[in-house]
Amino acid sequence: MTTNRKEVARLAGVSEATVSRVLNGIGPMKESTRVRVIEAAKQLNYELNAVASSFARGKSGNLGVVLPHVPKVHLFSTYYFSEILSGIGEAVRSKGYGLLLLFRDPATVYDYVSLFRTQRVDACIILGASAVDTDMEGVNRLAEERLPFCVMDQRFDNPSVSVVAADHEQGSYEAVKHLIDKGYRKIGFLNGSPQYSNSWDRMTGYRKALNDAGIKLDESIIYEGNYSRTSGNRAANLVYADLEKLDAIFVSNDRMAIGLMQGLRERGCQLPEDLKVVAYDDSDAASLTEPPLTTVKVPFYEMGRLAAEKLLSRLTDKDETETVINEKLQTELKIRKSSGN
Amino acid sequence: MTTNRKEVARLAGVSEATVSRVLNGIGPMKESTRVRVIEAAKQLNYELNAVASSFARGKSGNLGVVLPHVPKVHLFSTYYFSEILSGIGEAVRSKGYGLLLLFRDPATVYDYVSLFRTQRVDACIILGASAVDTDMEGVNRLAEERLPFCVMDQRFDNPSVSVVAADHEQGSYEAVKHLIDKGYRKIGFLNGSPQYSNSWDRMTGYRKALNDAGIKLDESIIYEGNYSRTSGNRAANLVYADLEKLDAIFVSNDRMAIGLMQGLRERGCQLPEDLKVVAYDDSDAASLTEPPLTTVKVPFYEMGRLAAEKLLSRLTDKDETETVINEKLQTELKIRKSSGN
Repeated sequence: MTTNRKEVARLAGVSEATVSRVLNGIGPMKESTRVRVIEAAKQLNYELNAVASSFARGKSGNLGVVLPHVPKVHLFSTYYFSEILSGIGEAVRSKGYGLLLLFRDPATVYDYVSLFRTQRVDACIILGASAVDTDMEGVNRLAEERLPFCVMDQRFDNPSVSVVAADHEQGSYEAVKHLIDKGYRKIGFLNGSPQYSNSWDRMTGYRKALNDAGIKLDESIIYEGNYSRTSGNRAANLVYADLEKLDAIFVSNDRMAIGLMQGLRERGCQLPEDLKVVAYDDSDAASLTEPPLTTVKVPFYEMGRLAAEKLLSRLTDKDETETVINEKLQTELKIRKSSGN
Repeated sequence: MTTNRKEVARLAGVSEATVSRVLNGIGPMKESTRVRVIEAAKQLNYELNAVASSFARGKSGNLGVVLPHVPKVHLFSTYYFSEILSGIGEAVRSKGYGLLLLFRDPATVYDYVSLFRTQRVDACIILGASAVDTDMEGVNRLAEERLPFCVMDQRFDNPSVSVVAADHEQGSYEAVKHLIDKGYRKIGFLNGSPQYSNSWDRMTGYRKALNDAGIKLDESIIYEGNYSRTSGNRAANLVYADLEKLDAIFVSNDRMAIGLMQGLRERGCQLPEDLKVVAYDDSDAASLTEPPLTTVKVPFYEMGRLAAEKLLSRLTDKDETETVINEKLQTELKIRKSSGN
């Protein structure tokens, strides 16, 4: 490798340091010099991929992704994580980086800063963060250091925390409005775990849609699960007992909706006749259920790709190194049979 | 833990900060100091977590996973990859390692060896390898170096290549035998891409089951897809035209089966009345389709976990460093309505 760089330098008539700077895209450079080096490198078949160039700069060449460890859950098999990771993976791959997945114990404050200090990662995305103290403290410490990182789909009050999220308030508003527009008034809500800001946002959208239609909120038909299929199935008990109070129900993700519908069917319900359902995510399973799910499509893949692209461009573009990322992507209601169409 | 570090520092005759720097691999450091700290830590049974001790040994603390780049495919959202990765992730997490995902271009020979040389990974799992020349050459080069790696679910003739796979011949045999036992004789086969050994194994199992039942192989009802839903949907054209020649069809994965059934239904078929279907994988979607799929359950999660555990124990157990891993896990037929039950 050293020999090669020397040869490129000789052929281009520049110093080895200049070859490195051109091939690693560091600093200002006369265009004619840049072209001469690239031509020489090509002529000598000198290949420098992004990883090699990262090492040359004392970097890891890795984008880190920190995920919560959830016992017994096959995290990569959930639509939420698999789609976000696919999007991150695409951005990382196209820039020649590696994707370093690290697992954190949600009960302790994760030491993100040392990931950077030990040069395991050049930048970092945090998935599955919540408003519990340990998560907030870990993220806030990272923000203090002004290191390149981004939180996915969880809002923080701290203005120096970069976030890429979806607009769950708007998504939920449209989901509930769709049911109201179809003439339903008694609309229940099965929400997910309260430690996530996107659960609060769904609640805000739900309340707003009812309020705008002059429907009084009925706390007795608001249920709570934890985004798992099992928790949806468990909620079927309560929902079944409340059927007379319900025309329809809005459910915070497809997995819970699938569990709920299965539980209701086992108790003899006809769907969508006995209860209209609108779910959330538009996962692969949404169009396979019977009836197929009306659901809010969330651009998880695009969110992952956008976060990774923005972070990686921060690494190379000096003007952007201090920019806080703050992106909110729009959702889209997919209308199928479960809402009575 | 602080007390412990203090003790290590005292025994080694260095400051606590130096202990930290050695154990976290934050250099530079005189070799004699490094050795003294490690010896003191060992003597006091000071537990190094896997990552700290990796750094102390000049290791990355990462298990690498190399995946093929497939344009437009959300790789993590396919059941096959997501489950294997979940299993790998669980093993990696429980040992305190990181999981470094790297993408390879299937058209070129991937330089696995340099992943080890540049200390990006301590061990490596190769997913989605096939029998095409570039894949075989990359893997064979790696095998020559006797580095700790393992190929998932793809057989190689080279006896020094470690492999963890499922027994797809047995799985396919049982799938086809199930149809024969139910009285069907005209059994077609929609196989996946021919560059994967597990496609050949499925073919062997299919042929063997027919042969054992004295049924003559009919090449005209063997179809080929590429394991995607779209390719299953495309095959519906041919299968529909051949319906009179078919009682049933064995399909090499659930995704193709779902695409095929959708295509047949769009052409007016009643399922399972007009055609019995047995699929393969037992993905989440298998029980959601109408009719639910009879399918061969493959222990992908266990395969991933086993490969990662074996590799990581090779790293720490000196007796095992030269052992070739060769594991074949059993599958299980899940009987549902699509095969006419």
